[in-house]
Amino acid sequence: MTLGDPAGVGPELTLAALLDPEVQKFCVPVLIGNVAIAERYFLHCGQSFPDVPRWSVAEFLHNRPSEAGLVDVPFEGDLDYDIGQISADCGRAAFSYVETAIAAAQTGSVDAVTTGPLNKQAMHLAGIDFPGHTEIFAERTQSTKWCMMQYSDEVTCTFATVHCGYADVPRLLTEQRVLDTIELTAAAMQALHNRPGTLVVCGLNPHAGENGLFGQEEKLVIEPAIARARAQGIDIHGPVPPDTAFLPARRACTDAFVCMYHDQGHIPLKALAFDRAVNTTLGLPIIRTSVDHGTAFDIAWKGTADSGSLYAALKLAARLVQKAGMGNQ
Amino acid sequence: MTLGDPAGVGPELTLAALLDPEVQKFCVPVLIGNVAIAERYFLHCGQSFPDVPRWSVAEFLHNRPSEAGLVDVPFEGDLDYDIGQISADCGRAAFSYVETAIAAAQTGSVDAVTTGPLNKQAMHLAGIDFPGHTEIFAERTQSTKWCMMQYSDEVTCTFATVHCGYADVPRLLTEQRVLDTIELTAAAMQALHNRPGTLVVCGLNPHAGENGLFGQEEKLVIEPAIARARAQGIDIHGPVPPDTAFLPARRACTDAFVCMYHDQGHIPLKALAFDRAVNTTLGLPIIRTSVDHGTAFDIAWKGTADSGSLYAALKLAARLVQKAGMGNQ
Repeated sequence: MTLGDPAGVGPELTLAALLDPEVQKFCVPVLIGNVAIAERYFLHCGQSFPDVPRWSVAEFLHNRPSEAGLVDVPFEGDLDYDIGQISADCGRAAFSYVETAIAAAQTGSVDAVTTGPLNKQAMHLAGIDFPGHTEIFAERTQSTKWCMMQYSDEVTCTFATVHCGYADVPRLLTEQRVLDTIELTAAAMQALHNRPGTLVVCGLNPHAGENGLFGQEEKLVIEPAIARARAQGIDIHGPVPPDTAFLPARRACTDAFVCMYHDQGHIPLKALAFDRAVNTTLGLPIIRTSVDHGTAFDIAWKGTADSGSLYAALKLAARLVQKAGMGNQ
Repeated sequence: MTLGDPAGVGPELTLAALLDPEVQKFCVPVLIGNVAIAERYFLHCGQSFPDVPRWSVAEFLHNRPSEAGLVDVPFEGDLDYDIGQISADCGRAAFSYVETAIAAAQTGSVDAVTTGPLNKQAMHLAGIDFPGHTEIFAERTQSTKWCMMQYSDEVTCTFATVHCGYADVPRLLTEQRVLDTIELTAAAMQALHNRPGTLVVCGLNPHAGENGLFGQEEKLVIEPAIARARAQGIDIHGPVPPDTAFLPARRACTDAFVCMYHDQGHIPLKALAFDRAVNTTLGLPIIRTSVDHGTAFDIAWKGTADSGSLYAALKLAARLVQKAGMGNQ
């Protein structure tokens, strides 16, 4: 678990999860953050910091923890930073937790990583130019074929493009990219459900292009990718009109929707499964899940943040570890 | 009421509404279609065609009906056309009903038009190159400032762009176009609710551009339009991230969402208010509403089509006529 941006809701959510006996029933939680920030948070709440094991980064990376504990990543900057504010120091800190987590997954100190919320602007202020967690994991693990998946019981979406401007999508949407996303989605459904899933691919254009009247991407890019996926035996439908893709009848017989851009999938996800969806990255050599909300600066350190998404993310990570048979790696 | 494409679900829905005493409680329904098609439909159902007044187009355009009845627009083609199939003859017929309805609204024979579903491909086969009803009404009434509104109790959306390819949206999205859409939406909320509405404007990009990281349209186009609307006293929020715009808490305090493109609004509309949303066009000199579904060729002439959207469209048209004080035009 990474603490996320120290000025947001990450500390309260991840510290509570670290100490929750319920969480320890399904995993050994390790929080990658900072001892001084944890102490400040408990002081802020008028509580004392419970006695949990604490390790330096070096100790952690060379010794796989067998009990719940806190990894102390040095904080570069003023520890008296403003709560609920964007700052370069907190952006840099959030990034350092993610880097440490990736290294720990690579050395085998942890089986999976669940990330707390970070703030992209804070990272940018610190000179770190990743659009999101997903891209950090992909670059640091040198993964070239990967995609975001948002998983929930109500609706599950994967994304052929994700963190880019609206206008950049048509250029980024290649037949290979759509096929890669379909293949990763099919593999994830097999891993999660122990059976081949039924996939639906959304079109890019209104009415899925209405036979070319509203755009050619369905014919030129998406349909050829679907044909190649079908030739591999993947059970797949589409391209379907994006606005009718998420109707209840279709959701009931679909394991995952392959979406062409961020909001095509995130609008129905938030509308139908807010706070219950888990963000995960498919195609990485390490298992990684994340909360599906941001730093929520407006309610940070008030103890009111909803832990539902973090718990769902931890549980999905544990489930993926079990399915992958990676428990003893 | 227009019959829509004769090979789709339009005939069964509109003929039932024409004859329904419940409909006649709130309006005088006039169906613009064709007597021979109506006869064929009733024969198909093993029923006899009820005795309702029938008028030629010329009679209708010069005499405002005072009772429910059927306008007989000549059908050009083989009346034994295939049910549930796209054809140029049916596309041409559907278009001719719309043209007659527009003329009737302009001459004062009707106060409002509710359109049945047409098929764009069938119209294109007939050489008629409109992307949809909305654009026909806009052109025939020489309207330059208009927009689509999808109205329902759950969620109401208006659209700065609508029937175009995904890739064309950034080019079509100008500050003036966004401002026009906001102004039309505010006027419609005042007319419908007798009070100024609270509007939310969606961004174009993921996370509403995340301060320019994912695109500049929010800063260059949408924010300036919002500022001008606010200067007119319109109660307006945004640009908001499109994926969180439609969460329950925000929906509860929003009268209408101003959307940048077709699927941004249609995905939540279909997910939240399928079969209950009414399509209407703001900014026309005539009142026009429409069903929000298509011709549904797969279930046409089976008597199983859901009339919910047509009835909602008729009721909204009657309400708009009443609000506009146009009842005695």
